[in-house]
Amino acid sequence: MLKKINHIGIAVKNIKEAAEKYVGLTNITDYETEYVEGQDVDVAMFKVGESQIELLQGRTENSPISKYLEKNREGLHHVAYEVEDVEKALKELKEKGFRLIDETPRIGAGGHKIAFIHPKSTGGVLTELIQI
Amino acid sequence: MLKKINHIGIAVKNIKEAAEKYVGLTNITDYETEYVEGQDVDVAMFKVGESQIELLQGRTENSPISKYLEKNREGLHHVAYEVEDVEKALKELKEKGFRLIDETPRIGAGGHKIAFIHPKSTGGVLTELIQI
Repeated sequence: MLKKINHIGIAVKNIKEAAEKYVGLTNITDYETEYVEGQDVDVAMFKVGESQIELLQGRTENSPISKYLEKNREGLHHVAYEVEDVEKALKELKEKGFRLIDETPRIGAGGHKIAFIHPKSTGGVLTELIQI
Repeated sequence: MLKKINHIGIAVKNIKEAAEKYVGLTNITDYETEYVEGQDVDVAMFKVGESQIELLQGRTENSPISKYLEKNREGLHHVAYEVEDVEKALKELKEKGFRLIDETPRIGAGGHKIAFIHPKSTGGVLTELIQI
């Protein structure tokens, strides 16, 4: 069902500083940046193999990432797996008893259909499905 | 410098229960298992694209994973990137000011050379380098 890891999301307090570190780690200087309005986050994407490292900083305190960082340290926030068809995957997982955060897909970074699965069903890992 | 995400490590309290969930998520029933003596952990590996999901449970309370779970919830524990040459990568990262946990490689799961970078240098993410 899962084609690949599309990206791993890392919640950071200062995306400029974090991006400098990931330039050092990856040797990628021309990383992509984006503002995702739905989540109110600034994003920096570093391509590693077939996946991406996604740094995330909330732009205001209303961002889910800002709220996350009020209670948690910086670090790994979620894993996103690419699937052929998000609706179909959600239906299949629901039938298997997975607890879904999104019963139907919404639009995420890059305009792609995404949906989140609750960490309770995935060993404590906030899990995203993304359809490219 | 980084070839791909080799695996993402997920710390769990009950690897049997967690593996059942990941069978449901990935539709992979013939996942690999291993006991890694150096870390005193039982491991279950699910292949997703070019990467793997690595579930980790400490076998005794002395395991670093058991100690981690005394203070933290289950969930994402580390990310491992595949590199051509761990020694060379460590040297390069040290010169750039990265804080290393392992100044020289040690042997991890599968008998591969691995080394850890401190989360302080990588946006709060415990980061492993692995040479295959």
